[in-house]
Amino acid sequence: MASSCGEVLRLSIFGQSHSAAVGMTLDGVPAGERIDPDALRSFLARRAPGKGALSTARQESDEPEFLSGLVDGVTCGAPIAAILRNRDARPQDYAPLRDIPRPGHADYTAWVKYGGAQDPTGGGHFSGRLTAPLCLAGGICLQLLEREGIAVISRIAAIGGIADRGELLHSTAGKAFPVVDDAQGAAMRQCVEDARAAGDSVGGVVECAVLGVPAGLGDPIFDGMENRIARIVFGIPAVKGVEFGAGFAAATLRGSEHNDAFILRGGHVETETNRCGGILGGITTGMPLTFRAAFKPTPSIALPQRSVNLRTMEETELRVGGRHDPCVVPRAVPAVEAAAAIAVYDALLARRRETGGPSWT
Amino acid sequence: MASSCGEVLRLSIFGQSHSAAVGMTLDGVPAGERIDPDALRSFLARRAPGKGALSTARQESDEPEFLSGLVDGVTCGAPIAAILRNRDARPQDYAPLRDIPRPGHADYTAWVKYGGAQDPTGGGHFSGRLTAPLCLAGGICLQLLEREGIAVISRIAAIGGIADRGELLHSTAGKAFPVVDDAQGAAMRQCVEDARAAGDSVGGVVECAVLGVPAGLGDPIFDGMENRIARIVFGIPAVKGVEFGAGFAAATLRGSEHNDAFILRGGHVETETNRCGGILGGITTGMPLTFRAAFKPTPSIALPQRSVNLRTMEETELRVGGRHDPCVVPRAVPAVEAAAAIAVYDALLARRRETGGPSWT
Amino acid sequence: MASSCGEVLRLSIFGQSHSAAVGMTLDGVPAGERIDPDALRSFLARRAPGKGALSTARQESDEPEFLSGLVDGVTCGAPIAAILRNRDARPQDYAPLRDIPRPGHADYTAWVKYGGAQDPTGGGHFSGRLTAPLCLAGGICLQLLEREGIAVISRIAAIGGIADRGELLHSTAGKAFPVVDDAQGAAMRQCVEDARAAGDSVGGVVECAVLGVPAGLGDPIFDGMENRIARIVFGIPAVKGVEFGAGFAAATLRGSEHNDAFILRGGHVETETNRCGGILGGITTGMPLTFRAAFKPTPSIALPQRSVNLRTMEETELRVGGRHDPCVVPRAVPAVEAAAAIAVYDALLARRRETGGPSWT
Amino acid sequence: MASSCGEVLRLSIFGQSHSAAVGMTLDGVPAGERIDPDALRSFLARRAPGKGALSTARQESDEPEFLSGLVDGVTCGAPIAAILRNRDARPQDYAPLRDIPRPGHADYTAWVKYGGAQDPTGGGHFSGRLTAPLCLAGGICLQLLEREGIAVISRIAAIGGIADRGELLHSTAGKAFPVVDDAQGAAMRQCVEDARAAGDSVGGVVECAVLGVPAGLGDPIFDGMENRIARIVFGIPAVKGVEFGAGFAAATLRGSEHNDAFILRGGHVETETNRCGGILGGITTGMPLTFRAAFKPTPSIALPQRSVNLRTMEETELRVGGRHDPCVVPRAVPAVEAAAAIAVYDALLARRRETGGPSWT
Repeated sequence: MASSCGEVLRLSIFGQSHSAAVGMTLDGVPAGERIDPDALRSFLARRAPGKGALSTARQESDEPEFLSGLVDGVTCGAPIAAILRNRDARPQDYAPLRDIPRPGHADYTAWVKYGGAQDPTGGGHFSGRLTAPLCLAGGICLQLLEREGIAVISRIAAIGGIADRGELLHSTAGKAFPVVDDAQGAAMRQCVEDARAAGDSVGGVVECAVLGVPAGLGDPIFDGMENRIARIVFGIPAVKGVEFGAGFAAATLRGSEHNDAFILRGGHVETETNRCGGILGGITTGMPLTFRAAFKPTPSIALPQRSVNLRTMEETELRVGGRHDPCVVPRAVPAVEAAAAIAVYDALLARRRETGGPSWT
Repeated sequence: MASSCGEVLRLSIFGQSHSAAVGMTLDGVPAGERIDPDALRSFLARRAPGKGALSTARQESDEPEFLSGLVDGVTCGAPIAAILRNRDARPQDYAPLRDIPRPGHADYTAWVKYGGAQDPTGGGHFSGRLTAPLCLAGGICLQLLEREGIAVISRIAAIGGIADRGELLHSTAGKAFPVVDDAQGAAMRQCVEDARAAGDSVGGVVECAVLGVPAGLGDPIFDGMENRIARIVFGIPAVKGVEFGAGFAAATLRGSEHNDAFILRGGHVETETNRCGGILGGITTGMPLTFRAAFKPTPSIALPQRSVNLRTMEETELRVGGRHDPCVVPRAVPAVEAAAAIAVYDALLARRRETGGPSWT
Repeated sequence: MASSCGEVLRLSIFGQSHSAAVGMTLDGVPAGERIDPDALRSFLARRAPGKGALSTARQESDEPEFLSGLVDGVTCGAPIAAILRNRDARPQDYAPLRDIPRPGHADYTAWVKYGGAQDPTGGGHFSGRLTAPLCLAGGICLQLLEREGIAVISRIAAIGGIADRGELLHSTAGKAFPVVDDAQGAAMRQCVEDARAAGDSVGGVVECAVLGVPAGLGDPIFDGMENRIARIVFGIPAVKGVEFGAGFAAATLRGSEHNDAFILRGGHVETETNRCGGILGGITTGMPLTFRAAFKPTPSIALPQRSVNLRTMEETELRVGGRHDPCVVPRAVPAVEAAAAIAVYDALLARRRETGGPSWT
Repeated sequence: MASSCGEVLRLSIFGQSHSAAVGMTLDGVPAGERIDPDALRSFLARRAPGKGALSTARQESDEPEFLSGLVDGVTCGAPIAAILRNRDARPQDYAPLRDIPRPGHADYTAWVKYGGAQDPTGGGHFSGRLTAPLCLAGGICLQLLEREGIAVISRIAAIGGIADRGELLHSTAGKAFPVVDDAQGAAMRQCVEDARAAGDSVGGVVECAVLGVPAGLGDPIFDGMENRIARIVFGIPAVKGVEFGAGFAAATLRGSEHNDAFILRGGHVETETNRCGGILGGITTGMPLTFRAAFKPTPSIALPQRSVNLRTMEETELRVGGRHDPCVVPRAVPAVEAAAAIAVYDALLARRRETGGPSWT
């Protein structure tokens, strides 16, 4: 069940970095919803590489091809299947890697798991390329959430230890390099460039907020919103930590500092602050749902690294060629939004069965 | 599907803080395994309250009652069902809370979700009491893992911003107050006492390591070990963040600093360091699997707090009575171990079908 | 995942014939529903043995004990857990069976599957006793369906080749021996008595109808109503066939004979006939949902049978002692109703999320 | 979760009769297995139409296009995704059907379920066309089962009430029109031709046997082999009944006639007869697993039928144009084999984790 998730909305991701295509099936989207292909393309373009000095030179033309589930652009209730062709494949770049696992990559663990039969080119099914079908599914969910008055926004909260300043806003999320404080953003970009120049890479943090979420989404214990979001966000390669609301900082606070007081605002119950990240007991409070995901530095670096040749079982030195992002964070921003959108939309559909009356006839 | 999890091993948790019992069913444990009741009781005792000044005075007698799945103490292949009676129930303590949600608790979100029909006493199904059946299931898994040479250890990494020093070791995990540096431990205890004296509470961090894990456990994308562990750990009340290996600190590093070199040790492939926390691409490397969970401060505090009366829809001040832990972290340590044990044992069973040959006849 | 089922409504069954208790957890029942304990007891009484010459003399006192999920008799949203104690256990009756599998029983296959560690007493987890928690869950669902105007009725359609005559009606379902034609019913009872007198047993067929089902329940392909019902009905021991509507007889018809014409009745679309059993494409038509389940004869018979001693690996003759129903069909009637109720109520809850509007605020 | 199934092997089916493609994703196939494309094509050809007077004239060129999961024809552990393009689409044939549901079809129920947004052309996601990706998945499983010494065979047991004579054999299964008694086969073909000439259609029964199945596959209660197979077989359009072993005939027998005696044969435990269809308690006995599926007559017939115009809400007469099989049974034979292969292979993989020792290192 590795590559699928969801309760009402069943998402299944397939493909490898250099297979014929990557793609997804999405079962459970209500019938009668129009999908805007232009908005979807725009969203996919945000994770596409080749947009500047910060990212890899590899060209990916992410034009979604819908195989089923839509009739004249409108969902018909059948599973949506859509693929993205892999065009600019260069598997020869990866030939030397077949026997020598790259430090920080899944090469070695996939070799153990699949008995040497794994697809070694470009990370196979573990590649960052798999965030493309995730974004495809997420881009659909974002459109559907928008119709319910729910928006997902995010920003680069930090790169290489350089943190953004100020609070995440709608206007931030629209930027090409989404930070509140552009001076900090410039420092982050320089940090990435420095890493690239050194044949190195650097990690960072993405912060995400879901606005307009109704209270009451999510379930106790294993299907709280934290569990649901974490399950998908940890599906994005390179994520090593997830925190909600105040997160790890909450562990340093006293209850009187951390608890969010309940107040009335316009006749509605709200919390005065939102340190809980809009989630109590796994269930949404109606306040913005906020979380942060930590990304490790890109493991593919030009600097020489120590590894082991799995065929000869000898230690060796490895220099990773190919073209790699020195920092995945800028391109990961839409993937984090996609993960949030999928989790929240799924919880929203699940919630309908609780509140929806017996309207059948 | 709120209260169940697992792929091969299906765990289902039930009960409320003040229902007749809390309990669990665990389906998928192989037949023929002896369960040691004394070891299980000892493990459950570690989360029991009433053991000292640090925790609540409420008495819980956690004697597991097995209803099915064992024949003469040995698993028979049928689902294991076991319960823990709720004896020291005092629902009258909670009467004033029926209409006024406690800040930081699930009272309000449960009220929205269940339309006011939720069990309001003591947190109902959202109570920390539900970690008792989690520990029951986890205690069984710990015994089964031990037979495979796998151990789960943990420590209190921090309380109220006071961090432990040194590295988590087997000997640490055995302590009554599991920290490496007892001076830091004493400071943490004082911090808890200070919070209690102030009618307040404090949060903290638990660090956990799984030793002896074979390489190859876990799956790509949505069922990696991070996803699997996070899904269960976020099922422990008060957890607001989870990080693996270097976690959020990885986001500040360069690739050359973070990547773990592959080396040969005794003819086996290992990594020289273990910043990835024993997981690459969601799959175990064979090195210790390490993670940390952040706990928010206990939301029930004696200090007055602002809230809203949901019946009259008026703002009000709330003083939470009853007996509450000023810090859940010491009692949460076995719950974190239980979560890790369940996730790892489930992944181990799932792995067997990949490596197990066709040994049937 | 052997012992659980359901999409929105997650049912998990546990227990063995002679464990401390049998029971179930039922997650997903909406909060705020009152459960009538008397109606539940009456329903459970229909499957209880010892009610006459037709059934076993074993006494089972099926008084449900609720452990969680109810507050003052009303569902609170948390999983419902309830057990039935096993009181009249006589495991010594089964001692000789430990090594010699009973023909027609799961003794041998459980021995293979669980490597000899299975619970051999009374069928263990494979016992007909496990229909008691199924009826417990089903009895709850029947009450909830009734509030939606949906009724589940059934009859004994045949025993030992003697078929009932006439059409299943509400009034039939209320009888102690539910057949339309009491003369045929008398012949069936004689057939059972003859089998008992001969130390033998006999099989039969149960017919079930769900009335008042709205159109639109169920899903295409693997989650049609046929799939959903069959998955649960085949969970009742001794069921070897399930057919919907005209079923196997449909295979002998022409399309012009089998197709149900669509007509208008009182402004609503209905079908003139109902050979499809109220299901087209896996989805309900709004007409009664009808199906039949074939039960094999009780495998435990007094007549000597050939078997193999699995310890000595020698062929042997076996005489099964103990007290056994010569025909499970009369007691299986409520189990079939329970299965139907669980499947239909689950599909109803799933349907709500499709039709329920965004009524949250 | 309508369109996916499986425990270890997760199959997801997508597509509509006239979408760009139909296809499937199959997650959980072990890495390192070579898939023979020619054998797969041959298997798919058995369900293709246009092979003679008995079937529809519609041309379907079922050349599978693999998108992922294979590297040089060998499974790599990642999900297998493959599609079959829909080429000979003629949606205009179906235009008049948009408002008038065809009796016996899912047109009406899909209209209710999807609020009129369903794909009305050619049955959409409910079309018999969806058996093509089922056969694609099943054809892969058949190859993998063959390597374990397991074969799936089947025959046409009856058409229009004309039954085959004799016992299902390997040699039967290889025939173009798979019956034991060719005279009966000729009568069946004539029956189909007569129905076609009359503008009508006819139903039938497919019998299937899985040979070489090891003892011990399947689980108790809801995941027995009957439950697993029924769940997939009822996913084939037009199936209205499934029975295992003696099935409905078992309901007419006495226990002494139906029970299969255990005997020793070549040192192994077997049953002397196989009336239980190789399944006891949901678990395989090691004898052939046998079952039969009843197919209703093709609902699309040329004869005029009564229906209702859903737009005008008036009763009307309908004449279904297009080209339709007067009997789906011959083409359904491979679909039944596919369903059996998927269910058995999934159970086999699930069984490995029980018997596979801890062979990791």
